[in-house]
Amino acid sequence: MTKIFAYAIRDDEKPFLEEWKNAHKDIDVDYTEELLTPETAKLAKGADGVVVYQQLDYTPETLQALADAGVTKMSLRNVGVDNIDMDKAKELGFEITNVPVYSPDAIAEHAAIQAARILRQDKRMDEKMAKRDLRWAPTIGREVRDQVVGVIGTGHIGQVFMQIMEGFGAKVIAYDIFKNPELEKKGYYVDSLDDLYKQADVISLHVPDVPANVHMINDDSISKMKDDVVIINVSRGPLVDIDAVIRGLDSGKIFGYVMDTYEGEVGVFNEDWEGKEFPDKKLADLIDRPNVLVTPHTAFYTTHAVRNMVTKAFDNNLALVEGKEPESPVKLDQD
Amino acid sequence: MTKIFAYAIRDDEKPFLEEWKNAHKDIDVDYTEELLTPETAKLAKGADGVVVYQQLDYTPETLQALADAGVTKMSLRNVGVDNIDMDKAKELGFEITNVPVYSPDAIAEHAAIQAARILRQDKRMDEKMAKRDLRWAPTIGREVRDQVVGVIGTGHIGQVFMQIMEGFGAKVIAYDIFKNPELEKKGYYVDSLDDLYKQADVISLHVPDVPANVHMINDDSISKMKDDVVIINVSRGPLVDIDAVIRGLDSGKIFGYVMDTYEGEVGVFNEDWEGKEFPDKKLADLIDRPNVLVTPHTAFYTTHAVRNMVTKAFDNNLALVEGKEPESPVKLDQD
Ligand SMILES: NC(=O)c1ccc[n+]([C@@H]2O[C@H](COP(=O)([O-])OP(=O)(O)OC[C@H]3O[C@@H](n4cnc5c(N)ncnc54)[C@H](O)[C@@H]3O)[C@@H](O)[C@H]2O)c1
Ligand SMILES: NC(=O)c1ccc[n+]([C@@H]2O[C@H](COP(=O)([O-])OP(=O)(O)OC[C@H]3O[C@@H](n4cnc5c(N)ncnc54)[C@H](O)[C@@H]3O)[C@@H](O)[C@H]2O)c1
Repeated sequence: MTKIFAYAIRDDEKPFLEEWKNAHKDIDVDYTEELLTPETAKLAKGADGVVVYQQLDYTPETLQALADAGVTKMSLRNVGVDNIDMDKAKELGFEITNVPVYSPDAIAEHAAIQAARILRQDKRMDEKMAKRDLRWAPTIGREVRDQVVGVIGTGHIGQVFMQIMEGFGAKVIAYDIFKNPELEKKGYYVDSLDDLYKQADVISLHVPDVPANVHMINDDSISKMKDDVVIINVSRGPLVDIDAVIRGLDSGKIFGYVMDTYEGEVGVFNEDWEGKEFPDKKLADLIDRPNVLVTPHTAFYTTHAVRNMVTKAFDNNLALVEGKEPESPVKLDQD
Repeated sequence: MTKIFAYAIRDDEKPFLEEWKNAHKDIDVDYTEELLTPETAKLAKGADGVVVYQQLDYTPETLQALADAGVTKMSLRNVGVDNIDMDKAKELGFEITNVPVYSPDAIAEHAAIQAARILRQDKRMDEKMAKRDLRWAPTIGREVRDQVVGVIGTGHIGQVFMQIMEGFGAKVIAYDIFKNPELEKKGYYVDSLDDLYKQADVISLHVPDVPANVHMINDDSISKMKDDVVIINVSRGPLVDIDAVIRGLDSGKIFGYVMDTYEGEVGVFNEDWEGKEFPDKKLADLIDRPNVLVTPHTAFYTTHAVRNMVTKAFDNNLALVEGKEPESPVKLDQD
């Protein structure tokens, strides 16, 4: 009987693992909550493939231990492969898959909801409610429909974000270095980032973190934006010079900032700092501002996305095990 | 020169009052921040009409004092006329206008944003951020696009709410005692409230507070709903038996509740209770729950709505003064 073994299964993943198991009664599925390490690799002994997801490095030792246990077919439940020692994986004959797209809507919805909350001054209103100040003035909202929304990057996520904003009745404009022909026909694109900065009341980034895009939001670009602009970064921390954003917030130029990603997030996000010394004063200050909404890289974290991550990873792994072409193989000689 | 005098002008109204003034340089516009009372009525002496907005009653004495000051043309910046002594107004020959529709989008957007926040478990995540617990699990979100959204009442506000939810990609169904032909053609309507309760993951009320609708959400209707339902009331407090909702929240049947209106809100909302004894323990408990979002009847409170309330009230008053037909006259012999 074909056997697939999964590592680091969280509680929120278990219903979807059970669902996959029920739909594949001829496959033996087992799992652990532990991460894959040189020590835990032996738990996979007897399996034909493993399904994994961790920030922890897949070191040469880990990969060797897994190969020693007889497993070289490995399917990631996430997209990122930076933490895999590719040279070793190649040497050992590994076959690897990932899940590159699990739910653009998860991220787009989060961006939209958080932006609307900033416009509405919801955090100030919530704080008033908590301390029992139930007066409505002066916490007045701006309606989403009145905004010109500028979307930078019209890929998977940017496109969904555009649809949501249009549902609210906002005017949407966009910029991308590669224009999508459908969107171009509909007249969404402006000619340059400068045009977008000049017109947009709300600016949302949906571009990759490639060197050319690092700190694309900086003092200079902010100075070209309208007063009372709302900026949204649910993409990657390095896209934004956070010190420039803080200056813009302090001067009042920026109405509010939505931040799901942060340049210094590694080792800080997805940790519990309650009762401990918080390691990043700048981040703490941002979290506490009434016109900043920080989340710890959770824009992706929905039941829809997690179901897709689990289901697609198991589907991929089964394909590998059965010698079929998986939906999303990872090339081992990429850099 | 024609003169219009306005009462109870708030800071957030001033920009729109100035805007109207600039567009009507031939009209003398003056205002006070005070409410209209028998004492302040004399401030309007010499004016041709007054523009007003207050919860305080327009008593026979107040109306008499205003008539004594020579003014019987009165334009409300809001919709409600329950606090006007209509018999006295009629006797004195008053002409009155109101602003029945100022921004359905303000209320519809608020309902949509708050519902999305409940689905996303945002309040729990925000509380974690505030106490520096930056772990994402187990605060997992439900995507709006995965929900069946049931809209009860497809009037001005309900229709905008439907468009916003469709922008997210949700499946929208609706119920109304008077079917809108456009919406009927598009197949939105289910045959009965029971059908809607059976199918909807999110239920939003957009009906008036008429006797037949009082406590339409109660133990019986909740028992017909799906498990993990989200209920939204941004319409009127009396539509909901709040004790039944609390039972549903306690049992886990209801995933979350959005509440902008509350049966006991008069005298509690729009007051500052900080440092004072809060008058309503049930309300305090609701405010503090992690899956309940309470706002103090502020769904309407946007710059767009306030601009319309000011602008339309002044337009109406000018029409009265000039002997033209105002856009929204109030019939004085209504009950
Ligand atoms: N917060 C989260 O949980 C989360 C989860 C997944 C992805 N993301 C991030 O979201 C972002 C968008 O992801 P996606 O799946 O939509 O990517 P995608 O590849 O589908 O689209 C990216 C688009 O950006 C365009 N682009 C690149 N550089 C640009 C520039 N300088 N100016 C304008 N356009 C530019 C590309 O042409 C492309 O159309 C990425 O940064 C990704 O890492 C965040
Ligand atoms: N929270 C706020 O700040 C705020 C502001 C303005 C209005 N409101 C409230 O929002 C609600 C909707 O306002 P609107 O302007 O859309 O009203 P509307 O009159 O345009 O629409 C109401 C709809 O409800 C329908 N209806 C009545 N009883 C029904 C029932 N039992 N079942 C199904 N449908 C029924 C009517 O046929 C109508 O189509 C009202 O209760 C209003 O008081 C709240």
